[in-house]
Amino acid sequence: MKIALIQQQSNLLKEENINKTVELIKKASKNGALLIILQELHQTEYFCQSADTKFFDYADSWKKDLIFWSKIARDNCVVLVTSLFEQRALGLYHNTAVVFENDGSIAGKYRKMHIPDDPGFYEKFYFTEGDLGFEPIQTSVGKLGVLICWDQWYPESARLMSLKGAEILIYPTAIGWFDEDSKEEKNRQLNAWITIQRAHAIANGVPVVSCNRVGFEPDSSGVMDGIRFWGNSFVCDPQGELIAYANHQEESILYANIDSKRTKEVRDIWPFLRDRRIDTYGDLTKRYCD
Amino acid sequence: MKIALIQQQSNLLKEENINKTVELIKKASKNGALLIILQELHQTEYFCQSADTKFFDYADSWKKDLIFWSKIARDNCVVLVTSLFEQRALGLYHNTAVVFENDGSIAGKYRKMHIPDDPGFYEKFYFTEGDLGFEPIQTSVGKLGVLICWDQWYPESARLMSLKGAEILIYPTAIGWFDEDSKEEKNRQLNAWITIQRAHAIANGVPVVSCNRVGFEPDSSGVMDGIRFWGNSFVCDPQGELIAYANHQEESILYANIDSKRTKEVRDIWPFLRDRRIDTYGDLTKRYCD
Repeated sequence: MKIALIQQQSNLLKEENINKTVELIKKASKNGALLIILQELHQTEYFCQSADTKFFDYADSWKKDLIFWSKIARDNCVVLVTSLFEQRALGLYHNTAVVFENDGSIAGKYRKMHIPDDPGFYEKFYFTEGDLGFEPIQTSVGKLGVLICWDQWYPESARLMSLKGAEILIYPTAIGWFDEDSKEEKNRQLNAWITIQRAHAIANGVPVVSCNRVGFEPDSSGVMDGIRFWGNSFVCDPQGELIAYANHQEESILYANIDSKRTKEVRDIWPFLRDRRIDTYGDLTKRYCD
Repeated sequence: MKIALIQQQSNLLKEENINKTVELIKKASKNGALLIILQELHQTEYFCQSADTKFFDYADSWKKDLIFWSKIARDNCVVLVTSLFEQRALGLYHNTAVVFENDGSIAGKYRKMHIPDDPGFYEKFYFTEGDLGFEPIQTSVGKLGVLICWDQWYPESARLMSLKGAEILIYPTAIGWFDEDSKEEKNRQLNAWITIQRAHAIANGVPVVSCNRVGFEPDSSGVMDGIRFWGNSFVCDPQGELIAYANHQEESILYANIDSKRTKEVRDIWPFLRDRRIDTYGDLTKRYCD
């Protein structure tokens, strides 16, 4: 199965972002992609760089956004993984991935479960924690374990999706460098990010897809300079082998072929799920064991 | 703190193995190592390549082994992580790491929790599952999260050790290639093995130490040719960066300096432990969610 990840540079005009994304979806669909993955909060700039109530206005279009992307999925006959700003009620918002079936119906949604809150990533201001759990979404191209960005650092979320039958793990994401960090620190951060996601593939014997933003976005509050999103969107197979990757500076459509037979091959030689010591994992539900 | 990993080629004579290990420990101690890590089941060949009751005789010396390695730790004034064949009772054996304090006392032991059972690795024949849980061992050089080989594929064991305060994760291990596999498959396996252990460092913000066998050992049953243990012992820092690594073909003492300040630095910029969704992890204690 051919898939496509759209790694995009955002700008301040929502409409321009969306128009460009739609053009790239059309192109990817024409090139045979059956599943298209967009980056985290792809409609707009990454507004969580600062905490400002004005940005909640971006979520006012939530219901219209659903109708819009439904039409795009149907028009291009693709399963589409979007990442939207959900206005659940006034004053109650989620960072939500909505997956559309290729007929335009909603296959399912995932509300980001692990919410970061760090300099430049003030997501706890904007988003309440997801309450839909780690539930894979059944589509015509397979059962998709959609997670979002910060989730990628948690082996627990990858494992839970896999235990529930996810056939692919998918991470729309928005992560980048601060220019003031050293080259060595930047490399360590990028390598850690790739490594831990490849490890989710290995631990669970499933392919992993990670679709990241690219390019510099200024901090509109002026407190920090901004974030240089590091691109490097990638796909790895169930053994963790990189089979497609984008660079750190260019917009691109990244294509990959997912071979559904690989999960059986890899899990048969490395049957990790067989030997889990579930009788001894109870403390995983503790904050800390002190 | 300076540590040393002893990556060794085994042969069929237990006494020769042990003598060589002791020489290497002396050398590492003279070179300033305060903590020395030995490979999995370092006293003997990797006998689990076949299932044969004769190999249980290797465990007859269990109590003498404890006395012997206690003396070696004391004589060299090092904290010593050994990996022994524990005869708990007749017909009841464990794959057990015993950690000796630098005065020769037993600091603690860990009984391997995840037991493999795959062609060439028939450990379920020899070892019953560990029943001491994932408990770090307090020593004069820190709280050691000692795990063994197959455990390294399980994010759960690394997490549990970390939640209980482990300051370093340590894996004595015995893993290698089958010569009949392709070069590409061998690379994938080695890369997966390194990647998932580096990911445990990243997920938990702790350094990881992995000490593997090296060199070819034939299958004494003649069913398979044997295993070419791939060496590649390594140490990575709490961000997953490789700070020391051995090659795939030579015996060696691998030295590394563990900087205890790095865990705080890394966990402060990436506070993953803060955001775990412990309210939603209950299904991790299930075999599968179907």
